[in-house]
Amino acid sequence: MRAIKLMPVVEALKRGKHFAIIAHIAPDGDTIGSCLALANFLMDHGKTVELYCHDAPPESLAFLQGIRNFVRPGESGGSQAHSAYYDAVVCLDCSDEGRLGDAAFLLKRTSCTINIDHHATNTLYAGINVVEPGVSSTAELVFDLIQEMDGDYFSLPVYEAIYTGIATDTGGFGFSNTTPAAHRIAAQVIEYGLDVDRLTRLLFRNTTLARVRLLAKVLDSLEMHCDDKVAFLMVSKVMLEEAGLDENNTEGIVNYGIDIVGVECAALFKEVEKDKTKVSLRTKGAVDASALAVKFGGGGHARAAGCLINAGIEEAKGQVLEALKGMLE
Amino acid sequence: MRAIKLMPVVEALKRGKHFAIIAHIAPDGDTIGSCLALANFLMDHGKTVELYCHDAPPESLAFLQGIRNFVRPGESGGSQAHSAYYDAVVCLDCSDEGRLGDAAFLLKRTSCTINIDHHATNTLYAGINVVEPGVSSTAELVFDLIQEMDGDYFSLPVYEAIYTGIATDTGGFGFSNTTPAAHRIAAQVIEYGLDVDRLTRLLFRNTTLARVRLLAKVLDSLEMHCDDKVAFLMVSKVMLEEAGLDENNTEGIVNYGIDIVGVECAALFKEVEKDKTKVSLRTKGAVDASALAVKFGGGGHARAAGCLINAGIEEAKGQVLEALKGMLE
Repeated sequence: MRAIKLMPVVEALKRGKHFAIIAHIAPDGDTIGSCLALANFLMDHGKTVELYCHDAPPESLAFLQGIRNFVRPGESGGSQAHSAYYDAVVCLDCSDEGRLGDAAFLLKRTSCTINIDHHATNTLYAGINVVEPGVSSTAELVFDLIQEMDGDYFSLPVYEAIYTGIATDTGGFGFSNTTPAAHRIAAQVIEYGLDVDRLTRLLFRNTTLARVRLLAKVLDSLEMHCDDKVAFLMVSKVMLEEAGLDENNTEGIVNYGIDIVGVECAALFKEVEKDKTKVSLRTKGAVDASALAVKFGGGGHARAAGCLINAGIEEAKGQVLEALKGMLE
Repeated sequence: MRAIKLMPVVEALKRGKHFAIIAHIAPDGDTIGSCLALANFLMDHGKTVELYCHDAPPESLAFLQGIRNFVRPGESGGSQAHSAYYDAVVCLDCSDEGRLGDAAFLLKRTSCTINIDHHATNTLYAGINVVEPGVSSTAELVFDLIQEMDGDYFSLPVYEAIYTGIATDTGGFGFSNTTPAAHRIAAQVIEYGLDVDRLTRLLFRNTTLARVRLLAKVLDSLEMHCDDKVAFLMVSKVMLEEAGLDENNTEGIVNYGIDIVGVECAALFKEVEKDKTKVSLRTKGAVDASALAVKFGGGGHARAAGCLINAGIEEAKGQVLEALKGMLE
């Protein structure tokens, strides 16, 4: 079935010679891994590819081959570099046009737009849409696409990029979107020679001294509420400054709260500026994180959501506690 | 090939009716998962099984079906319960007789001893030895054994136990022993209906408030040495007492040290009693953790080892730093 859905993409990529590939804003391992896998594959087949992303790719993925080739369309001088026309423009892991950010204008630079994604909320904004919510990751679809186009193809950098997309989007083969296919692709790329230990260290077991120092301080701030069903963690600007880190270095810390037995809701309160607090929410069981975030103009999923509260940390904590009342059954 | 090696085991288990299955001392997810998978499988086929382990299974595995059936041979009253004779005694994940602890005497209660393991150091102490160092885990071998004995067999509790063995021994499909077969078995058990998110939360994303409080304190003790190539973490008896935890609650904390970029050697110093310090060592690159541990009468692997030093934490730190000199190239 999936092979049939991919046929129009296969034909467009075989026919064309010059492509643009776009990753989504605030890029993660799946969008970057998918873009680099497809770009390297196409270049190995004599095509030219330009890679675009509204934001800079995360430093943690710097080991992926070709990652320095991403162009930020909004950057000064960046727009001159863009080609006038592409045989196709491929968006990977982008659920709607808004996720393209400043790269959205590229959709007008071709008569063939392609949208490959695994988000159920995808708006089918392209000419060719391959949207499969049942797969683990967009990288899984790119793997299928490569197999369809050239079943004998071998390239370790391409399979490292595929593995990166699958492993990061499934939380290291742990989340509910871990499909049998995700495991079977991993099995195949290990047979191809992928160094699992090296890759997983780069992706998951890789931190800095400053981050560990910050983690110690944030964990020390742990506060329990509502009969230990609610865990609050706090990050002030002073804590970030003392660690010499910017606010992008707190990813995953909220999980230390939700992973505690008995906790139903965990929140990380991060002071981004005076009277502005970013709140990351994680929930188990009864509490809907998305419903909680929506009360503050935020959003997300049932188990992970976020919002921005126009108040200092202490006041924001009080507001979230108040909103939580009645949600903890 | 493996099917041929397993044939004598298949025959012995098909022929017999009454078995003992033994897990190793200080049991982990692989030995416990392997034992429970095989025991439940055999009982589903009308056999009787007695499960033995020198130590109590870890609380974190309490969700596995049948785990309360493990008997500790050394416990008062325990020995009376043992059968006089077994059709076969099966040791799973036990590399030598010493690993059987107080359960070793059971090898004399049968004419058919079976040793199934994946440790290269296995001493082949049984009548039938199936030792495969190339597999991810003993659970992988038990999966093969079950497939050989009854390819149509289905039992979710058995596959949860198999998955537990594979996932814990590979560090969540991340370590270098993550084989293609490990991933393919995971794919298969997910198709059988295993709830990955639930299992991985129980195995890996499951802590207690006391442990998080202890972690905050231990991370706060982080000391860097030798141009930030060496990370030391400390756990005193007072810290454990304040957290209300015993010394078995520090597993994995040393990894916060070794996961720091640039660190070549991390050590966790744990005060077990006055002037006795347990040291957990992790290394990258040049340093051989085993060679370092051997200097203090300990042992282990190249990347993970441990030793006991007859000194307080401060003196032990000095001794390890001294021993490290010349090893950091």
